[in-house]
Amino acid sequence: MSGELRVIPVEGIPEVREGDRVGGLIAEQAELQDGDVVVISQKVVSKAEGMVRRLAEVEPSEGARELADELGKEAAAVELVLSESKEILRAERGVLITETHHGFVCANAGIDASNLPDDGTVCLLPRDPDASAQRIRRELGDRRWGSPDNSGEGPPTPTAGPSIAVVIADSFGRAWRLGQVEVAIGCAGLAPIDDWRGRDDANGRELSATVIAIADEVAAAADLVRVKDEGVPAVVIRGLSHYVTSDDGPGAAALRRPTSEDLFR
Amino acid sequence: MSGELRVIPVEGIPEVREGDRVGGLIAEQAELQDGDVVVISQKVVSKAEGMVRRLAEVEPSEGARELADELGKEAAAVELVLSESKEILRAERGVLITETHHGFVCANAGIDASNLPDDGTVCLLPRDPDASAQRIRRELGDRRWGSPDNSGEGPPTPTAGPSIAVVIADSFGRAWRLGQVEVAIGCAGLAPIDDWRGRDDANGRELSATVIAIADEVAAAADLVRVKDEGVPAVVIRGLSHYVTSDDGPGAAALRRPTSEDLFR
Repeated sequence: MSGELRVIPVEGIPEVREGDRVGGLIAEQAELQDGDVVVISQKVVSKAEGMVRRLAEVEPSEGARELADELGKEAAAVELVLSESKEILRAERGVLITETHHGFVCANAGIDASNLPDDGTVCLLPRDPDASAQRIRRELGDRRWGSPDNSGEGPPTPTAGPSIAVVIADSFGRAWRLGQVEVAIGCAGLAPIDDWRGRDDANGRELSATVIAIADEVAAAADLVRVKDEGVPAVVIRGLSHYVTSDDGPGAAALRRPTSEDLFR
Repeated sequence: MSGELRVIPVEGIPEVREGDRVGGLIAEQAELQDGDVVVISQKVVSKAEGMVRRLAEVEPSEGARELADELGKEAAAVELVLSESKEILRAERGVLITETHHGFVCANAGIDASNLPDDGTVCLLPRDPDASAQRIRRELGDRRWGSPDNSGEGPPTPTAGPSIAVVIADSFGRAWRLGQVEVAIGCAGLAPIDDWRGRDDANGRELSATVIAIADEVAAAADLVRVKDEGVPAVVIRGLSHYVTSDDGPGAAALRRPTSEDLFR
């Protein structure tokens, strides 16, 4: 369980375009090993999945216009946030915190404009980030099992093959702390939570409340080597094979606190 | 700025007792280099500072008794939480979320019982975790500049000497995500926040809202190599020297969101 961890930026990934196989692009640049965790920026996954929108083509509703006025935001941007959300938690002081259709509570439904062409485009979150992580994981495996032509027509992925985990990460703010940290919005092949409840501590006393959000700590660790403005969209973390699973597992969905347990809505 | 990161557990640190110089104990086991960040578990800092309390010696107030009954908690434990807090944010469903005197919003004022002797003792947070980090940073430096006798009577720390940063980390829950992640409750010699506002992204578009909580991501990364029940209280992160500063800096206090900006109280 102990031992050193390496956090390795993957250099040389080209600009990602709609339709690209992100897993294939990463596998061409990274020398992956069994047990590696590959952490990918949400932005490139969204771009590959065509989740970029042009604000000029968005028709804001009357409600979006009013809310935009109140918050000092662009009406088309607010319209997109509302269309990506199932509930507004806070809309005040220029801040719009919603719950997305996926169940993430974050600012502006995770929509932002950084690292996009300066032409009025913004980027939405992937429709289903856990499914995206599963697909990218298979693409990484395809490459490893001999379909370097990136066509997806290689041999079928063996069910008990070498295991590499995929995490899709995005920056979220926190209610009571300044600054953003990267969290896992999707994952596949990684145990997202390490649950110590019921186990004993070093003194034989039961650990009552230690449930560690491994996938979020993985996302945060990867961010430390990412250079936001120089395009390092993927990071490999080596040394966490004990958290890598052969099946895709529950995904980052397991990290969303159910509304029924939310004390701060 | 780019480049690989290493996250290295420090093995062999003995059980920490009240009065121990934590920095000296770490420096004896770790081969530290300029630009290293040393992440230390809150628990050992608190133990060294004598912040362990025996529940049997705590006299609960009437209010603490009532609240303990409501929440199904031990009255003495609730009394301690209240004494360490300046405000209760939530007290329901067995959960007690307060703002500590330091300004941290967390469960049970950060008090817990894991990894302590099973004799009814609990551990409080350090009184001033940024000051603790500064002191430990000096202790690490003392060792490096030739006072291995741990007496603290070595030569004074040079103002422009080699720089090592110290982070004191503890596990906090999150309002909308399950599981805990480690965050920085204290730090010294580390830029706690990397503020990209006003800088341009890769496409020359201004990054409007990217403020990264570096110290928290550092704490999270360190947790990934820590084995909770086997006593690895310190972790070295190598490769972040661009965030290490010669002065102690603003500390983790810079990560506390001011009450005036808190939308979720």
